[in-house]
Order: sequence, then structure tokens, then C-alpha cells
Amino acid sequence: MHEFDARSARDRGSDLKNTFRQISGSICAPRGFKCAAVFCDIKKLGTGKGSEKGRKDDLALIVSDVRAAVAGMFTTNQVCAAPVQISRQRATRKFARAIMVNSGNANAATGAQGMKDAHHMTRLAARALSINENDVLVCSTGRIGVPMPMKNVERGIRACVPRIARSTSSARQVAEAIMTTDTRRKEVSVEFRIGGSIVRIGGICKGAGMIQPGMATMLGFITTDAAIVPAGLKRALKIAVQQSFNRISIDGDMSTNDSVIALASGLANNHPIKLDRLKQSSFQAALNYVCRELAKMIVRDGEGTSRVVKLNIRGARNDREAESAARAIATSSLVRASWCGGDPNWGRILCALGYSKAKINESKVDVGYAPTDSRKILFAFRRGRPTNVALKRLARITSQSEFDLHIGLHCGRGEFVIYAADLTEDYVAFNKGDVNDPATLGG
Amino acid sequence: MHEFDARSARDRGSDLKNTFRQISGSICAPRGFKCAAVFCDIKKLGTGKGSEKGRKDDLALIVSDVRAAVAGMFTTNQVCAAPVQISRQRATRKFARAIMVNSGNANAATGAQGMKDAHHMTRLAARALSINENDVLVCSTGRIGVPMPMKNVERGIRACVPRIARSTSSARQVAEAIMTTDTRRKEVSVEFRIGGSIVRIGGICKGAGMIQPGMATMLGFITTDAAIVPAGLKRALKIAVQQSFNRISIDGDMSTNDSVIALASGLANNHPIKLDRLKQSSFQAALNYVCRELAKMIVRDGEGTSRVVKLNIRGARNDREAESAARAIATSSLVRASWCGGDPNWGRILCALGYSKAKINESKVDVGYAPTDSRKILFAFRRGRPTNVALKRLARITSQSEFDLHIGLHCGRGEFVIYAADLTEDYVAFNKGDVNDPATLGG
Repeated sequence: MHEFDARSARDRGSDLKNTFRQISGSICAPRGFKCAAVFCDIKKLGTGKGSEKGRKDDLALIVSDVRAAVAGMFTTNQVCAAPVQISRQRATRKFARAIMVNSGNANAATGAQGMKDAHHMTRLAARALSINENDVLVCSTGRIGVPMPMKNVERGIRACVPRIARSTSSARQVAEAIMTTDTRRKEVSVEFRIGGSIVRIGGICKGAGMIQPGMATMLGFITTDAAIVPAGLKRALKIAVQQSFNRISIDGDMSTNDSVIALASGLANNHPIKLDRLKQSSFQAALNYVCRELAKMIVRDGEGTSRVVKLNIRGARNDREAESAARAIATSSLVRASWCGGDPNWGRILCALGYSKAKINESKVDVGYAPTDSRKILFAFRRGRPTNVALKRLARITSQSEFDLHIGLHCGRGEFVIYAADLTEDYVAFNKGDVNDPATLGG
Repeated sequence: MHEFDARSARDRGSDLKNTFRQISGSICAPRGFKCAAVFCDIKKLGTGKGSEKGRKDDLALIVSDVRAAVAGMFTTNQVCAAPVQISRQRATRKFARAIMVNSGNANAATGAQGMKDAHHMTRLAARALSINENDVLVCSTGRIGVPMPMKNVERGIRACVPRIARSTSSARQVAEAIMTTDTRRKEVSVEFRIGGSIVRIGGICKGAGMIQPGMATMLGFITTDAAIVPAGLKRALKIAVQQSFNRISIDGDMSTNDSVIALASGLANNHPIKLDRLKQSSFQAALNYVCRELAKMIVRDGEGTSRVVKLNIRGARNDREAESAARAIATSSLVRASWCGGDPNWGRILCALGYSKAKINESKVDVGYAPTDSRKILFAFRRGRPTNVALKRLARITSQSEFDLHIGLHCGRGEFVIYAADLTEDYVAFNKGDVNDPATLGG
């Protein structure tokens, strides 16, 4: 009898690498990194009544004491924000010193003025930090189509620079400053050994809506004190992002501002990481872990998300078709709405598989449900036919806040895993705006 | 100054053909067609308490007095229901006599038994009507993965046949029998002249959820008394479906059961319709109109739909890219949720354009809003920059239950029009099922 193993062969392999441990400190855990965040009213709430609510920090700086190897992954949306264009270019260089980030305004769809403003932001930060302008990357998140309030930004940078410090609390402040519709800050840090040296990786991110394919309205910042050549960091980040931020889906939208940036100070003084064995290295395993944990936090905190589904596709003709099948299910409004109600509605799943770009032979398809990470799969549909498993037993699994969905296509060896979110009334309520409240409308 | 004309050149051209007039009679308006519908409890509600609610007719027959030319368009979903497989094959033939249709059970994902049952349904109908089994097409809509209750079907057919009649009320009964989550029946009929002959076309359909690309959980039945060769009817139906049912989008899901079937009795005795000039013929114009009106009824009655947006894309590199841009917008959860609140959120529209497969040059893009079919377009975004039009003025348009959205890409001459629906809390509530109520769960 054919039986799924809930973990794929590849997952099992990578588990062996987990020789790191979680520590505190977030992006300040690695040696050589300082940061700070301030409120400078980028949303232009003013100081009137009711503006207190929105007074969270909205501008932050992450600074490396030394020139750090830099790597970045960015949105593939053709419409991309001014800061993305600048940071994408600067991340192709070998080294950088600082990342400046603001929430409240995405500086997207802002035309030539937006580019000028984004450039000017890096110039202001560079001056205040006495570093080279080209060593500053910049990220923005928030409303689209609104000019950056440059006076506020300038004031913010001046206030921010004197506060930069290496502390868990300053890292926490930055993790909170980058939040938009997130309800929780997202941070993780780990420690591991390379030879006799202790190496650390820290990461923070923000997510919420528009989470899908090649990333989404998400910003991620990774710091490490590993000594790694810039080309190695770039390759490692690409691998980690593919397995994490690119494997989550909330609503199928992909934003104009997605960016994940990594800085490596080299202050751990470890033995050089061999690039030809990067995939097997403890550095890569730890970086994958950090990115994956951050990515999962994003799905769990997705706008209105009430349920997270780990969707495992196996037996597609190839990995690409497995991904297509996974994304068809993860973005189907009907499937996602059924998850919201805790409904094991395999009919809609079959339907989504049928219109995906993956080759489907209905008479071979299996659809099964399992509690999170359990290997006990309860099949609702087996080899093209409904099983006689009681709906109640399936619903016991799908009514949990997280569960695993296993699809077997039996057409080949392609596989793909994605973390998907349900579609809830709260998501719609959250995103629908209100014609009677102009503050909720627009970009 | 560049100005859109709210109607495209092609639309304006086709308007000239509107020399038909609406009449009553629905699918019984054309000569030679009879129909009837009955309740035979296909959902197996039983006769217990509370079952009254679901006791709507669920089985119907549409019968032609003579062998009628037949044409059909079907779902392109790889997972397709047993009746679709049978009807698709039979629609490749030249003539047919009857269409049998049931709601309450989709006979999808039912394996080999489903195929047997669907075949048996056509056999039962053929016997009762004393016609050839191959002349009967069959359509099913309703729950997935549940075996057809063949005893009830058999009883239904026996009860239905004696009732078939050519009347407006029997047509109305059939239009109601095919409804699932539809809240209104959908029917239209027109009359026009070909030479000295009066020709009629009638149509009914059902829609609701899962409406998108190559059609969706929709059934459409067209009757006409036009004399047209089978090859002509097939070509005309394909053209009409492309411009109607394939240009609506509710939630981006495509069902396993979509079918549009046309029968032409030839009893109008008109002059032969010239196939080489089919596109310019009054027959084609009238068929397009019937299909387009039915399609619009489907969007307006989409599950939870509160707003319908006519989305006009122009200036794409080609029509295919225009379609890709239109579908990216029409299926974006974020855009659709913003419409729900009447929010002219052009930022999300730009974002969706950016991840579509259409080539986008941000600095050339226009986004404008107009009242339905009005040529007065209010631009929110022009040549890559937000205009200074007041949000309030835009919201006055987008707060209507229908409005037009105009996107100019200025990259070429490709264009596409699609009717899209907003995403509402009601849609989610409707589709989410309830773990505590097994009747709402499953296929």
C-alpha cells in the first residue's frame, strides 16, 4: 500500500543539520550590529486628537560597525517602489553598512519624485552616520501613491542616529517600527559553531497582507557575524528565501515593496565557509531555519488569518508542476473560504488541482489530512474516489488552527510545500475600506 | 490630450448590429422547443421536518420536436464531471434532441460509477422520450463526490416527460430548477429577421460561485429556431461564449461542470446563414447579445457580490496580455476587497498589473473610473503619477453598485473587457461551511 511520509526525503535530510540553538538578541545578537527606531510621523497624523493611536515608531536604522557583506532579494513585481530600485542595485555590490527603513509610506507609484526622495533618504542617513551613501540600503512599507514627507524623515533620521545601540530592546523596537498591519513583531535568532567559532544569525520581518509567490508586502532583515564572502551570502540568501518566504501564500497578491536584505559582519572570525559545500553547511541550515521561522510567523499573522495549512504536494511530474498545483489550491478563494469554516472540502481542492498547470490524472489523485507534522494521514479521497472516512473525523483535524494537507498526484517525483492561510470575513473587513472614512481609502 | 472612449472600436462596431428585440418566452420562444421540470429529491433531503426548504425542482428536460443542430462549450478543467465527458462527446455530433439537467448533485469526482450513472441517465431519458440515447445530452450541478441517487432520478424522469410543454411558465420552471446558490433565475430571449423570416433565440443559465476564465460552475442552455448548419452553430457559439461567459470573473475558481449547450431546430425556415460572413451576421449579433446578457446576470448574482466592475484594459502589447492584466485585477483578493468597500484603491490595481503577465511600463499607466457606460472618465493615476483628483469624487463613482474601470497601458493595441465582482464578507460566510453543521461541509 502506498503511504505518505508526512516529511519529504529532502526535509528529513535537512533536519540532520539542525545543530544550532535559539538565542535572544534578534538582529543585535550577531557581533557588530546596532540599531534604533523612532517616531517621526510619516503617516502625517499630526498632533491632533485621536492621533495617539497611530503613534508607533515608523523609522529605523540597522547599522554594521564594519563594512558587511550584503545580499538582497526583491519583489519581481514590474511595478516596484523607488526604494526597491535603489536597494536592488546596491545589493549587487559586495559590501554595505546600513539599512534604513520606514513604515507608513511605501514610496511606491510616486514617479520621479519618489526616486529623488528615496535617494535623498539614503544620503541623509549616510551623512548622519558619516558613511558612504552607496553603503546605505533603504526600504519602505505602507500606503501607495503618497509622496514621502521628507521633512519628517529628515527629523526622524537626526533623532534616530544618536540612539543606535546593540541591545535586545533596540532590536525589538526596530521589529515593531517596521510593522504595518502586523499584530505581532516577528524576530528570531540562533547560534551555532563553525569549527571553534560561535556564529550568530538574527532576523526580523514584517508581513500581513499581500503575501504570495516571489514574496509579498514583506520586509525581512537578517544580520550575521559569520565571515562569508559576499558571493556566498548572496547564494545562501537566495536558497533560504526560496525555501521560506517564497513558500508562503496569504491572498495571492504580490507587493511592490518586498525586500529581504542580509548583512554579514564577519566578526565571528570563523573558518571560511566553503562555497562549493554551502548547501550542506551549518550556516545554510541555520539561515534556512531563521527565514523559515520568520516566514511562518508571517502566515500565522496574515490579515484576518484564522487557520494555517501546510500544503504538501507530491508525485507531480516535476517540482514546477507541484508548485503550480500548490499555488492553485493556496490561492483558490473557494478552498480558502472552506478552510475558514474548518471544512475538509476536498471537492474544491480537486477542482483547483484540475485548473492548475500541473498534469492531473483524476483517477490517481489522493487527498489526505493530518494534524500538524503528524505522519498519520486520514484520506478523504484515494485514487480518484471518495473514501468512506467519516466527515467528522476529517473535521476534527481541519477544525484545528493549523493542519497539514497531503496531495498525492502519482504522476512523477515532483514535490512542493507551501504554507497557506484561510480566507476570512475579517480579511475582507480589514481590506475593504469604507467610503465614509477617507482615511481607509486610496493607495 | 489622450482620451479614452469608454467603448472600444470593436464594441461600437457591434452595436450597429443590434437589430433584434427582446421578447418573452425564454427557451420556449423559438419554435420547436418544449421543456419541463420536477422535484425528485436529488439532494436526498427526505421528507422529514425542515426538508421543505430545499424542495425546489431539481430535474429538467429540454426537448426539440425535430433533430436540432447541436453545439457545446465545456469546462477546460482537467478534473471534469462525468456528464461533461458525455455531453462534450455528443456535442461533437451534428444533431441532438434533448438536454437533461439536474441540480443538487454534480456527479463529479465520482469515479467509474459516476460515468455509468450519467450514461444511464441519458438512456432513461431517451427511453421515456422514445428517442436515440446518443441524442440526449446531460448536465449536472451541485455537490461534488456524492453518488447520484439513481432511483430518484429515474422517478424524476418518469414524472417529467408527461409535463413537457412549450410555454413561458415551463421555461421559467426549468430556469429555476437549474439554480443552486443563485438567488434569481436567469433568462433572456430575442427576435430578429433573416430576410423575410422571423428568427428567435432563447437562453437560460445558472451561475453563482466559481465563475472565472474558461467559464465556471455555470450551465447555459440556448435554443433557437434558426436554420443553421451544425458547423455554423458550433462556430457561432464559440464566438459568443468567448465574448460573454469567458469574460466574467467572480472568484477565480473554474468548476468541473461548466457547460453551455445550444440547439437549433431550423423551424424558422430562414435563408441559409452564410458561414464566411457569420461574424457580421444578425444571428451572431443576437447570439452574442443573449450570451452577454446571461453572463452579466451571473456576475450580478455572484455569491455575495455587492458590486460589479466592468474592467476595460487598453494599450496592452496584444489582446492576450490585455486579458492577463484584466484577470490579475479581477482575481486579486485585495483589489476585490477594496471594491467591496467602494474604495477607488488604484494602488492595489497597479500592484496587480505589476505581477500580471502583461508588459507594464509604470510611467505610462493610466487608471480611471467612470459611471457605467459613461464616457466621462475620472483619472486617479495618469502616466505613472497620481492625479490630484479628489478621492471623494472617485468614491462617488466607486460607491455605486456598478461602475467602469479603465486601464490604459500605452504599450500597444491589445484590449480586453471583463466583468468582475467584488469580494465580500458574505462570500466568505457563504462558502466557509460550519464544522458544527455537517450539511455545510464536504464536496
